[in-house]
Amino acid sequence: MLEKLKQQVLEANLALPKHGLVTFTWGNVSGFDKESGLVVIKPSGVPYDQLKVEDLVVLDLDGNIVEGKLKPSSDTPTHLVLYKKFTGIGGIVHTHSPWATSWAQAGKPIPALGTTQADYFYGTVPCTRKMTAEEIQGQYELETGNVIVETFNNVNPLEIPSVLVHSHAPFNWGKDANEAVHNAVVLEECAKMALHTYQLNPDVPPMDQELLDKHYLRKHGANAYYGQK
Amino acid sequence: MLEKLKQQVLEANLALPKHGLVTFTWGNVSGFDKESGLVVIKPSGVPYDQLKVEDLVVLDLDGNIVEGKLKPSSDTPTHLVLYKKFTGIGGIVHTHSPWATSWAQAGKPIPALGTTQADYFYGTVPCTRKMTAEEIQGQYELETGNVIVETFNNVNPLEIPSVLVHSHAPFNWGKDANEAVHNAVVLEECAKMALHTYQLNPDVPPMDQELLDKHYLRKHGANAYYGQK
Amino acid sequence: MLEKLKQQVLEANLALPKHGLVTFTWGNVSGFDKESGLVVIKPSGVPYDQLKVEDLVVLDLDGNIVEGKLKPSSDTPTHLVLYKKFTGIGGIVHTHSPWATSWAQAGKPIPALGTTQADYFYGTVPCTRKMTAEEIQGQYELETGNVIVETFNNVNPLEIPSVLVHSHAPFNWGKDANEAVHNAVVLEECAKMALHTYQLNPDVPPMDQELLDKHYLRKHGANAYYGQK
Amino acid sequence: MLEKLKQQVLEANLALPKHGLVTFTWGNVSGFDKESGLVVIKPSGVPYDQLKVEDLVVLDLDGNIVEGKLKPSSDTPTHLVLYKKFTGIGGIVHTHSPWATSWAQAGKPIPALGTTQADYFYGTVPCTRKMTAEEIQGQYELETGNVIVETFNNVNPLEIPSVLVHSHAPFNWGKDANEAVHNAVVLEECAKMALHTYQLNPDVPPMDQELLDKHYLRKHGANAYYGQK
Repeated sequence: MLEKLKQQVLEANLALPKHGLVTFTWGNVSGFDKESGLVVIKPSGVPYDQLKVEDLVVLDLDGNIVEGKLKPSSDTPTHLVLYKKFTGIGGIVHTHSPWATSWAQAGKPIPALGTTQADYFYGTVPCTRKMTAEEIQGQYELETGNVIVETFNNVNPLEIPSVLVHSHAPFNWGKDANEAVHNAVVLEECAKMALHTYQLNPDVPPMDQELLDKHYLRKHGANAYYGQK
Repeated sequence: MLEKLKQQVLEANLALPKHGLVTFTWGNVSGFDKESGLVVIKPSGVPYDQLKVEDLVVLDLDGNIVEGKLKPSSDTPTHLVLYKKFTGIGGIVHTHSPWATSWAQAGKPIPALGTTQADYFYGTVPCTRKMTAEEIQGQYELETGNVIVETFNNVNPLEIPSVLVHSHAPFNWGKDANEAVHNAVVLEECAKMALHTYQLNPDVPPMDQELLDKHYLRKHGANAYYGQK
Repeated sequence: MLEKLKQQVLEANLALPKHGLVTFTWGNVSGFDKESGLVVIKPSGVPYDQLKVEDLVVLDLDGNIVEGKLKPSSDTPTHLVLYKKFTGIGGIVHTHSPWATSWAQAGKPIPALGTTQADYFYGTVPCTRKMTAEEIQGQYELETGNVIVETFNNVNPLEIPSVLVHSHAPFNWGKDANEAVHNAVVLEECAKMALHTYQLNPDVPPMDQELLDKHYLRKHGANAYYGQK
Repeated sequence: MLEKLKQQVLEANLALPKHGLVTFTWGNVSGFDKESGLVVIKPSGVPYDQLKVEDLVVLDLDGNIVEGKLKPSSDTPTHLVLYKKFTGIGGIVHTHSPWATSWAQAGKPIPALGTTQADYFYGTVPCTRKMTAEEIQGQYELETGNVIVETFNNVNPLEIPSVLVHSHAPFNWGKDANEAVHNAVVLEECAKMALHTYQLNPDVPPMDQELLDKHYLRKHGANAYYGQK
């Protein structure tokens, strides 16, 4: 079942080491099938160079395993919360990519400082608050999803497709698994450049709103004119 | 038509990922044919690993498409302004290469701190002023060209073949597309080293004028003696 | 003798350049056979691309060579001290990996700032005190082992499988040579991210104890639930 | 003539891009034949991927070309001064390797902060003073050699086989061309780690003299015991 989605999720997982986003097994990608309401996700702790389509795990949004012999990623409950609450997303990527993770460890959001970020993110990439002892000691991975959702209370997740989880690392999403990986790569580049930008000019303000509008909207929405469509 | 120029422009575009200057489609190269007054440029949003000669777009300097089935790069109007105003250039490269882009985001020019920069740039690589809301909301890509030209009011673009566009990224040029790519690589190296130089010594002044003269002029102009010519 | 261990130690040594942890011959891996009490270690100064199983040296814990024609690594006495004192370890890796070595040169321990470190280290990776003139001028490599052991006076080496030797570089260990290399890779990633984290936020405290507990214990000990076991 | 030396010099030149020390043609290696008093050096401006044995230029120590159809490296006079004044060296490497060049641009020597540097350099890698206008406008490349020699007034070049030329880049040497390349790689690693070390601890003093002695002397001189000899 869901053979096409599984193939996409496999390729998206394999794209993580190819883009330099993961060390060892520090990352996972899932994809969501809107019609059936099922999620395909990487199994826990399996090295990327051994990963095969048949290793992927299929679950419903309540976490019941529908297909697959292996245990799903330990981060699965986080993915499920996001698919339930962020309507319209079809793929999620979690990595410990080093530049974005450094921002997450610093507990700081990444403001939009230039058009590279504006081409993909309509503003600041937020960082969650610290999780409470109760959240950590309770259903930790589910609560990780909840704190992400809380962070997007006033933010449209379709316009800001990444988040930094405090003291942890980024999660990224998109309309499908491939776009989620794409956004994870962009976030890593933006995180690297933002750190260097602040080193050159600690007082630099976020980019002007007009420039942010221009770049985001020339690639997204009804009036987009970038690319061949 | 312009088959030789198209081949050069194709190869120059493919050189961008090879030199680590671009992520995804974040860059474009054009070439200019002086005799016909025509420009060959990369199509918008086409991945480098799929790019073929027949995808390239041929335009006149007023932006009329003369040949090609695809939409030209969204940055085309910027290229056209530069070909019109910077007499003698034959190739233009735009990238979001990360070190130079960090300087552009910081809104800071890159002073010549050593002979590496002096071998290619006769002084500081400037950064444009911020663009106004009117410029951004109007003919944005054309105005980007205009603000670059304004920045070179008192600077010879043949001696300083790169610019940082504020809150955006670098543009580079040269006598042909290949030299423009070459200069883009040099700018990226100089941007990286200048940041690290200031980290080691925040008070370092620009290099001495005599050393700048010596290195620039031993590679450029009538008395050059570097290389085999 | 010990053919299986030799093969593991060879592969672990060859993994060092593959993971970008060593330049030239700046590193060595050993493995320990609990039953026989023997150690297999890289010979001194042999380039990785020439290293063969028959080059490896077998010693007892007193440093007597049992097999092998080449001189063992000059760091052998350090390895032997650790195998004697850190019960339960089966592999040791020494490298001059650049990010961890920068921390060692700075004479600073690496606090746990996020879950990447917490997944492998149950807290701060310590840095030894400086060695005394007497230790350096005496049995230097053995004393290096002693100062590491002293540093772990109140720390469980099975929970913190790396150390920074002051003004020198890291040593790492694990249940076998492969796990020791794994930990060396993790340390290098954590060292890099911790430096960047402090650059973004010089006042960042160590991560919350609850999050450290959660991540370390979901991968280690009786209640671990990460991976397929 | 000097076919063996030419082969060594060719291989040493080709090792520069392999070790990531050069961009384009920004570097050159020469070798010295003690018996004949002749120098073999890279031609000026020839790309490494096109370089062949027959392109190499043979000169005497006064700069007279003895063999070769191409112009020698523009830095040849610098090499010749060093071969004349630094008795015992047999190979010289000049690069613009980015970390060492950042120190040269900052005008700062690289103190020995750890055993990595101590294994190859018996102390601080010095930086020359700025060259005067007269030196720059006169026989610039020869004067570059002179200012290096002046910098080693109280330093043994066999114990410190590299220098940073102010506002320029490093020169490195060794008993032959291969060792000079080796030292150039080490310098680059040490330059990178020293910058990061100071970022972690701006007040870190140079390493203790006893540790410097121990590491340098266990690899060099009559009592060396590192490696298989």
